[in-house]
Amino acid sequence: MKNKLVTWKDRILFTPGPLTTSPAVKTAMLRDLGTRDEEFMTVIREVQKHLLDIADVDDKDYAVVLMQGCGSMGVEAVLGCAVPREGGRLLVVENGAYGRRMADMARVAGIPLVTVDYPENTPASVADVAKALKEHPDVTHVAVVHCETTSGLFNPIDEIGDVVAKAKREYIIDAMSSFGASTIKMKKWGIDWLVSSANKCIEGVPGFSFALIRRDALKRTKGNSRSLCLDLYAQDENMRRIGQFRFTPPVQVILAFHRALQELKAEGGVKARQDRYQENCRVLREGMAELGIREFLAPKHHGWIITSFHYPDCPNFSFDRFYDVLKADGFLIYPGKVGKADLFRVGNIGHITPADVRGLLGAMRRALEATGSAPVPRKKRKKA
Amino acid sequence: MKNKLVTWKDRILFTPGPLTTSPAVKTAMLRDLGTRDEEFMTVIREVQKHLLDIADVDDKDYAVVLMQGCGSMGVEAVLGCAVPREGGRLLVVENGAYGRRMADMARVAGIPLVTVDYPENTPASVADVAKALKEHPDVTHVAVVHCETTSGLFNPIDEIGDVVAKAKREYIIDAMSSFGASTIKMKKWGIDWLVSSANKCIEGVPGFSFALIRRDALKRTKGNSRSLCLDLYAQDENMRRIGQFRFTPPVQVILAFHRALQELKAEGGVKARQDRYQENCRVLREGMAELGIREFLAPKHHGWIITSFHYPDCPNFSFDRFYDVLKADGFLIYPGKVGKADLFRVGNIGHITPADVRGLLGAMRRALEATGSAPVPRKKRKKA
Repeated sequence: MKNKLVTWKDRILFTPGPLTTSPAVKTAMLRDLGTRDEEFMTVIREVQKHLLDIADVDDKDYAVVLMQGCGSMGVEAVLGCAVPREGGRLLVVENGAYGRRMADMARVAGIPLVTVDYPENTPASVADVAKALKEHPDVTHVAVVHCETTSGLFNPIDEIGDVVAKAKREYIIDAMSSFGASTIKMKKWGIDWLVSSANKCIEGVPGFSFALIRRDALKRTKGNSRSLCLDLYAQDENMRRIGQFRFTPPVQVILAFHRALQELKAEGGVKARQDRYQENCRVLREGMAELGIREFLAPKHHGWIITSFHYPDCPNFSFDRFYDVLKADGFLIYPGKVGKADLFRVGNIGHITPADVRGLLGAMRRALEATGSAPVPRKKRKKA
Repeated sequence: MKNKLVTWKDRILFTPGPLTTSPAVKTAMLRDLGTRDEEFMTVIREVQKHLLDIADVDDKDYAVVLMQGCGSMGVEAVLGCAVPREGGRLLVVENGAYGRRMADMARVAGIPLVTVDYPENTPASVADVAKALKEHPDVTHVAVVHCETTSGLFNPIDEIGDVVAKAKREYIIDAMSSFGASTIKMKKWGIDWLVSSANKCIEGVPGFSFALIRRDALKRTKGNSRSLCLDLYAQDENMRRIGQFRFTPPVQVILAFHRALQELKAEGGVKARQDRYQENCRVLREGMAELGIREFLAPKHHGWIITSFHYPDCPNFSFDRFYDVLKADGFLIYPGKVGKADLFRVGNIGHITPADVRGLLGAMRRALEATGSAPVPRKKRKKA
């Protein structure tokens, strides 16, 4: 790579994050700040304020805790802090890799667990969660992934929230790939813990996650954490006391995120961003249908963050060749696999527009032809 | 901050990291790469190779595992993976905040623990460790901080290594603030696990840590990890199998580190970097002595990463005012506190030179005069 420093041009990332970020987000990283200096502490406070605004809550009732590391570390931190060491039990809704990962985190940490499982193409059912809570009165916390990046489906977290609130359990939402581009009413939907990450719909670069937590829930968790570093209670306590992280924060990544939040606001906020992603998604799905490539999810379950597609109906199709031809044209897509179904995925999020999606679709058409794997156009195909 | 985007000039960080990085290290972050793409995987492999070279070991016998998050997460990952869930016991040498932090990590994770404690100005004694190992035959792992950033002292990890090897225990070194600017012979000194971080002597930006691990030790740790995310065995296994991180890596931070490793090589490697830091340190200590500011450590225990100083012998001294005046002149120093001793600290590491240190010393003289807290010059002072 070292000899290509002056010749590279980055490809457009149609991936579920890390994703393509704006030039200004990246250049915000061209600084070295002292982590204990007021200038950096001001950045942190502004980031916290902005995140609370997005979730439509205020800092009297909700804490914002930034956590170094990847998004999954944020999820593990939430599970490991929220559920008490004695007398706690977690219910996890599973319909994809990220729900399963939460269950795995609980197993490794020794947190008692119940799961409610579905195939990857099926959103969670409110009735099933209600039934499970009735069957398992010892469950103290319910965790659901909002948008399952495995497939792109959204779980009905608002309706499930009603059931969880009625049953008086705490409610944990993994909003990793939805927060910032999907309206989430933390208070109204009864969400006690929400976790997301820098490099998703806020369009920052990867390096930390953040949790929004109802203060009444957080204040009961002293000593719960199964990990010194992933202790959200201690992280919040330190931040409130002296305005600093306990351990070294990813300074440049936070500066990029600070800039990304300004850009989200300038774009028009969550609704405007959702609109752009939905338009990206609409253009993508329409174009893919024209290419005869089938979606994995039923249309009614489809979100707007990422779309899973079956391999083209063509015996010659090779994903690796397809990927390489697209890459040569400047586009990166994402692999995917669900059970026995061979899929690939195309993200709609990041600093990309419908024009970029149209560019991708043109490249896909060329790639399918070049690799001799163009499927039979839909109108000519027999009904399955 | 948003209105200052065109007017800022970063201050020089005389902090123990995050530290001042080179322009090229920062500009290496102006990219968006796909985390599953070959281009990024190549970067990871080159980083791993370079880190093995620095430790003078090869990938047949040693693994390099990168871990998302701050340096302390890397330390926690090592402790939580190395020590078996059944029959393991950890001995930690404590003579500063970072030794104590390792002990705290063990307590939170429920890892049985013995500590060998010293005051912050006293390096560990080889005889004490030998004695502790004799007294506690159930200890399976010994963990020592190489350079204690609390004070700046170095522990004699090579000699302790002999004792640990003779006693047939595994040996864990926290080389957070020494790796890259201090010769460490992993194999010869019997180090099984070594952990450091991106934003210290390699001069990258913060966002991940890395562990170098003897493969024979690592391969016995499947299922040991107390955390899903901080599982070094699983992280290594995934990387070896498909060349990728399990969870989202901090792409831009890794690109900066990749560049920083090239700069380390261009500078002349570990020895050349150590020389520069030692010269930074020599100029600093000499200048501080002229200002009449006393060091915390005895000279014979002094390292070259960071230096702790007592507050000037002046009743008017206010650290906050001193800090602010230095900051206005473009220099950031670091607070410090050890027991009842009020200290401040000055780091020698990062993209800084003796000229920068001389600039700092001039600013310190002005700051002491401006705040009316210039100490009595040493030659005029009575002997204590």
